[in-house]
Amino acid sequence: MVVATRPETKPLSSEELRKIHAYWRACNYLAVGMIYLRDNPLLKEPLKPEHVKKRLLGHWGTSPGLSFVYIHLNRLIKKYDLNAIYMAGPGHGAPGVLAPVYLEGTYSEIYPDKSEDEEGMKKFFKQFSFPGGIGSHCTPETPGSIHEGGELGYSLSHAYGAAYDHPDLIVTCVVGDGEAETGPLATAWHSNKFVNPIRDGAVLPILHLNGYKIANPTILARISHEELEGLFRGYGYTPYFVEGDDPETMHQDMAATLEECVNEIRKIQQEARSSGVVRRPRWPMIVLRSPKGWTGPKEVDGHKVEGFWRAHQVPMGAMHSNPEHLRLLEEWMKSYKPEELFDENGTFIGELKELAPTGNRRMSANPVANGGFLRKQLLLPNFRDYAVAVSEPGKVEAENTRPLGNFLRDIMRKNPTNFRIFGPDETASNRLNAVYEVSKKVWLADMLPEDQDGSELSTDGRVMEMLSEHTLLGWLEGYLLSGRHGFFHTYEAFAHVIDSMFNQHAKWLDICKNEISWRAPVSSENILLSSTVWRQDHNGFSHQDPGFIDIVTNKSADVTRIYLPPDANCLLSVADHCLRSTNYVNVIVADKQKHLQYLSMDEAIKHCTKGIGIWEWASNDDCGTDPDEPDVVMACCGDVATMESLAATAILRQEIPHLKIRFINVVDLFTLQPQTEHPHGHSDWDFDSLFTKDKPIIFNFHGYPWLIHKLAYRRTNHNNLHVRGYKEKGNINTPLELAIENQVDRFNLVIDVIDRVPKLGPAAAFVRERMKNEIIENVNYAFENGMDKPEIVDWKWPY
Amino acid sequence: MVVATRPETKPLSSEELRKIHAYWRACNYLAVGMIYLRDNPLLKEPLKPEHVKKRLLGHWGTSPGLSFVYIHLNRLIKKYDLNAIYMAGPGHGAPGVLAPVYLEGTYSEIYPDKSEDEEGMKKFFKQFSFPGGIGSHCTPETPGSIHEGGELGYSLSHAYGAAYDHPDLIVTCVVGDGEAETGPLATAWHSNKFVNPIRDGAVLPILHLNGYKIANPTILARISHEELEGLFRGYGYTPYFVEGDDPETMHQDMAATLEECVNEIRKIQQEARSSGVVRRPRWPMIVLRSPKGWTGPKEVDGHKVEGFWRAHQVPMGAMHSNPEHLRLLEEWMKSYKPEELFDENGTFIGELKELAPTGNRRMSANPVANGGFLRKQLLLPNFRDYAVAVSEPGKVEAENTRPLGNFLRDIMRKNPTNFRIFGPDETASNRLNAVYEVSKKVWLADMLPEDQDGSELSTDGRVMEMLSEHTLLGWLEGYLLSGRHGFFHTYEAFAHVIDSMFNQHAKWLDICKNEISWRAPVSSENILLSSTVWRQDHNGFSHQDPGFIDIVTNKSADVTRIYLPPDANCLLSVADHCLRSTNYVNVIVADKQKHLQYLSMDEAIKHCTKGIGIWEWASNDDCGTDPDEPDVVMACCGDVATMESLAATAILRQEIPHLKIRFINVVDLFTLQPQTEHPHGHSDWDFDSLFTKDKPIIFNFHGYPWLIHKLAYRRTNHNNLHVRGYKEKGNINTPLELAIENQVDRFNLVIDVIDRVPKLGPAAAFVRERMKNEIIENVNYAFENGMDKPEIVDWKWPY
Repeated sequence: MVVATRPETKPLSSEELRKIHAYWRACNYLAVGMIYLRDNPLLKEPLKPEHVKKRLLGHWGTSPGLSFVYIHLNRLIKKYDLNAIYMAGPGHGAPGVLAPVYLEGTYSEIYPDKSEDEEGMKKFFKQFSFPGGIGSHCTPETPGSIHEGGELGYSLSHAYGAAYDHPDLIVTCVVGDGEAETGPLATAWHSNKFVNPIRDGAVLPILHLNGYKIANPTILARISHEELEGLFRGYGYTPYFVEGDDPETMHQDMAATLEECVNEIRKIQQEARSSGVVRRPRWPMIVLRSPKGWTGPKEVDGHKVEGFWRAHQVPMGAMHSNPEHLRLLEEWMKSYKPEELFDENGTFIGELKELAPTGNRRMSANPVANGGFLRKQLLLPNFRDYAVAVSEPGKVEAENTRPLGNFLRDIMRKNPTNFRIFGPDETASNRLNAVYEVSKKVWLADMLPEDQDGSELSTDGRVMEMLSEHTLLGWLEGYLLSGRHGFFHTYEAFAHVIDSMFNQHAKWLDICKNEISWRAPVSSENILLSSTVWRQDHNGFSHQDPGFIDIVTNKSADVTRIYLPPDANCLLSVADHCLRSTNYVNVIVADKQKHLQYLSMDEAIKHCTKGIGIWEWASNDDCGTDPDEPDVVMACCGDVATMESLAATAILRQEIPHLKIRFINVVDLFTLQPQTEHPHGHSDWDFDSLFTKDKPIIFNFHGYPWLIHKLAYRRTNHNNLHVRGYKEKGNINTPLELAIENQVDRFNLVIDVIDRVPKLGPAAAFVRERMKNEIIENVNYAFENGMDKPEIVDWKWPY
Repeated sequence: MVVATRPETKPLSSEELRKIHAYWRACNYLAVGMIYLRDNPLLKEPLKPEHVKKRLLGHWGTSPGLSFVYIHLNRLIKKYDLNAIYMAGPGHGAPGVLAPVYLEGTYSEIYPDKSEDEEGMKKFFKQFSFPGGIGSHCTPETPGSIHEGGELGYSLSHAYGAAYDHPDLIVTCVVGDGEAETGPLATAWHSNKFVNPIRDGAVLPILHLNGYKIANPTILARISHEELEGLFRGYGYTPYFVEGDDPETMHQDMAATLEECVNEIRKIQQEARSSGVVRRPRWPMIVLRSPKGWTGPKEVDGHKVEGFWRAHQVPMGAMHSNPEHLRLLEEWMKSYKPEELFDENGTFIGELKELAPTGNRRMSANPVANGGFLRKQLLLPNFRDYAVAVSEPGKVEAENTRPLGNFLRDIMRKNPTNFRIFGPDETASNRLNAVYEVSKKVWLADMLPEDQDGSELSTDGRVMEMLSEHTLLGWLEGYLLSGRHGFFHTYEAFAHVIDSMFNQHAKWLDICKNEISWRAPVSSENILLSSTVWRQDHNGFSHQDPGFIDIVTNKSADVTRIYLPPDANCLLSVADHCLRSTNYVNVIVADKQKHLQYLSMDEAIKHCTKGIGIWEWASNDDCGTDPDEPDVVMACCGDVATMESLAATAILRQEIPHLKIRFINVVDLFTLQPQTEHPHGHSDWDFDSLFTKDKPIIFNFHGYPWLIHKLAYRRTNHNNLHVRGYKEKGNINTPLELAIENQVDRFNLVIDVIDRVPKLGPAAAFVRERMKNEIIENVNYAFENGMDKPEIVDWKWPY
């Protein structure tokens, strides 16, 4: 094992050391103040119970380490004029970030009531983790934050996402040793195989071993040095160790190590950029081992606090009943000597303030962390140029996602440095492989000669493939929040892997959009779900789950959009719309396999713009001029659901010609919700005009059927709404068999209609019987032949 | 860096080598047959198109490696009489597992139509990945499988879960290099810090570097040997490398290495067991680097196949149109010389068959992999003994989860070797810390002196804490499926992290329960969601998400149960029920903080048994003898929701005494669904008796309000059902403020009643105005004081 690299110099003069330590004392003073005080912020008078908040909330433990890193970065930003941002994995230690953000002035600029004086400091303290106040995480309200750190696991992938295509940027990412135990974080270390030192910026991960979680030690703090070093060398980094608790030594060590790392990064980049030769370097990373709750009380009530899990949150409470605690708090805060740090007015003294960079070089004011400001509109070719020719509905077949691939290819061409595509190893499988004509998969791990034959790897591609949905989505989020554009596609069933990440991003966007006027809109997160449930007949039950969109419908209507385009042209129209939009999560569900095509491009645009509509060519009622006209409404949403609904309609029109059918297709799922619940919701008047007030509706849905009820339960005709969808029936099946199991197939739909439309006469009973026979025959055929009958596979709309 | 350990011996005699290679040839022959053939299984006649399936499905690439490992394990099982099971991370390579399972006879014993002869082999081939047939993953139908490998990421945590408390068991877990890129897998390597070599079995992970995913190389196959070795040493293992493609050499290497690993495992265990000294050993693991699609076609149509991603699935298709492919297939299959492996009848020849172990020593027949057979009933103390004394409803407060902790403590005591508790660092925070009196947190990483002060660590604890919900749930699943009992508790919002794991486990159980008679029932997966949305007022928006139960309602009603006990005694009753049950996922939602107590234990048992019921003491109608009697139904579900509903009821009864209120509490969420949809669903008659057919229902719900509509949309009185719940409004708030934001608070509920009950008269309008003022006043108070008014915090039921 190679001995850990460690610079031996002491780069700080005693004056620099004094100042940087004073700056850190100011950070720690503020952090404690935020957690405890509501008044007397400068401790000008003796601390009394009424100066202390009644409800004590916040995380002290990680805060000193977070600001320790922050201010040492400041030194180098100033020294080298670095373009840097800061990502706090342990975002719950917000006091450790908010303190330096306040000290460098940004906080007061954005929130003028938290001014740089005693009054402002008092508000800053009081409102921390206080109703209507400042969050206890690095929430969207935190200047310089693009990572809240509420849910653990994504700091490092966010950091890499921000660094891609920002060649001058250094993203310092503090990874807590708690977060390091999560799966998403554990695999995100491998992101270094996707960084190109010529065109990308750098991530400097700092694993903060402060040793403890809420009530447990952390794994990485309790393995041998050799294991720890092996692990990070194994991940492909050169680890540097800064370990200790003596502030003076630690300042020198951190200053030297951080400077060495920054220089190493710059050297790597300069070499690659001057030579044009790209190979994967061993990027530096730092292991910072420092006590939890560093500089806080060593012991409270006979229990060890500093350097132990008891320092994780509020190290001591009962301030209003325990005078000893109050005394300890005062002593603790005074140990930072606030009188040396802030002047009489409570303003941070000049000689310290000048340690921080100014203007946009401040990490809290770096526009990268308010990425909407940097965002350039995506240059889009005309999506109409990629249309599938459809002269008659339901006659030709195409793979729905393939034209989208061509569209994405040309978007990639027009936006060579600010657009990326993300997907776990399925870009080709999802028929998006045209993008490789313009941009390969980025890959900086080893290559082999055979990769020339179709592996589509390159050190300068912008297609991102790794078998971790977590890492991919984390990269995309970092990329979007720092001002760029992207497109994520994944397996429908396994989109649930990133349910929780979606939740967090939607919440972030909701706050940004509705609460934070200073944040500029960022590009939407566009998610294509392909390899959908209805074409998982061969992979079986475990691959069948259309429920990701159920999760989406729980989040704010202000930021969520769901589209289920029935064919390739609708998919193009929807994708174009999504790629132009900002501040949404757009979820598109579209299968990759061959499907019937229904709408010409003009028709598709019209249809998608409305989001829902009557397909007159499929209907035989008078097409909506009288809302009470049809005998039954055949509604559908999703590609396979649409085809089966159409096939059922064809059977009905042939077999029961007097039955008046209205055929409705839904692209934009939220049109079904009332206007009051979602901006895309149709008015009740519109809805009733489409669905009638009292006729049976047979709704064939791509997903779980009850989702439609969840959206439409308030509608007038809800009692006649009969929904079919996936109901957890499946195994190894043919496509038709799988549909039959879940009763979304044409034959069952015909039966549904016959059972629900009154007075259809004896002919209908005969048709019903035939349908039951069809079901049996088709299932038998599938069982014998391993595939569906040719007339099912090749079915076309007959009119 | 220490040079990789590698035994140099050649343990196989030439005769043994010949036989083991022949056995492997038989496996590979069967794997190819499964993917391609529907007839002519022994190739007795020249291969014709009609012998080949029309739809070719399956994964060849990983299959040879999977059976290679399997049969080498067989050798050692026989030699040392090992108790071993096999876990295939790349479960999609089912042919590589099914083949040896068939050859050792288990498959035919369980599925007699797949007999050990030509006819049986033909069916075995034809039905693989064929409608109604054999899954293409290691599905529950696969003898010996407790891990399907459909969704990637969980093989290693499942393996460790099976090994805990099975001291003699060796779980060999093949980890695919694709799966190794996922987050859950990347952190599961750290499971070795939780294995006690005295009382636990061992996991032998085999990282199978076959180099490629669907269309990409894998990361771990494309880093340097030094990095790879560093990584696994860093994870705490001693890696052994078996690398190559020459079968003869590889058989010798694998035989030697596997034997060395098994001996190393036994040595570690013997040392610990004889000395009684437990320390964390460096467990062995193997890196097996072998070509993808090993022994398959080297090249097809001019493209490299063996050792490349093109071997991932079906290496060549178009069998019915491309005679050259057909010829290649025949040549490929004949290269395994089936005539030397199977006799005239198609039966595997005796001298090879005897290489496999027999009876329950066969990994496919090991009862551990049909854990229900090993399962012993959990010994439960009488949960009534842990009751909170409740003489009057709504007067006393208790932390709802604390008595559960006492109950769990004594369960742990009575079941010292087959019950474990799993949670990410929150056992104490969730008030379950009484369990530590009996069993500490297991911890085999380093310990420090200060851990004595409350860290509750021990090498022999059975409380499992790690900051990875994925790993914890994977352990629990492995533990349950191998016949034991467990209890998982986690943060409600972050339960979404394991949405996808829940989905997969529910699907597994559904198939086992409904399709596979030979699988004995396993203990239910019990999940407690605590730290719930309504008490995340201080953590803010990112910590507020009650949507996990929405996901649960999408899965089969046969295996899903959701309980929201309103108080501590109900929680005890529910928990007792869940811990006794089998084959369910039971989700219990209960907050950890102080809440009002309503029911004595007897009442609680009655209430929970019905799952839903009228609380007569809270109602002032005539309590249900006439279903049309009340003016309004106040319904509620969830602890905080119940308290606010009660408080609203108290206000209404005081202010509008002539208003007849029926108060209904729901514990078992699925009672709301129709009987036809869920076995716990109440009949429409019962439902109507409770909720009336036409009176307004004000339903206060713990979760997202529309979930109630999703469940109850078919009920008679659905149009009068007005649901309140969490609607994504929250920030730093007090508890009441958060409730007010989402309108689940007492004041808004009173307004809801007044707005919906007709003819309440002018007094009601006055009350309505007062409620609006209360809302404003309370919000202002919270904003000023950082907490709710004492009369809110201390509110008791006044009657």
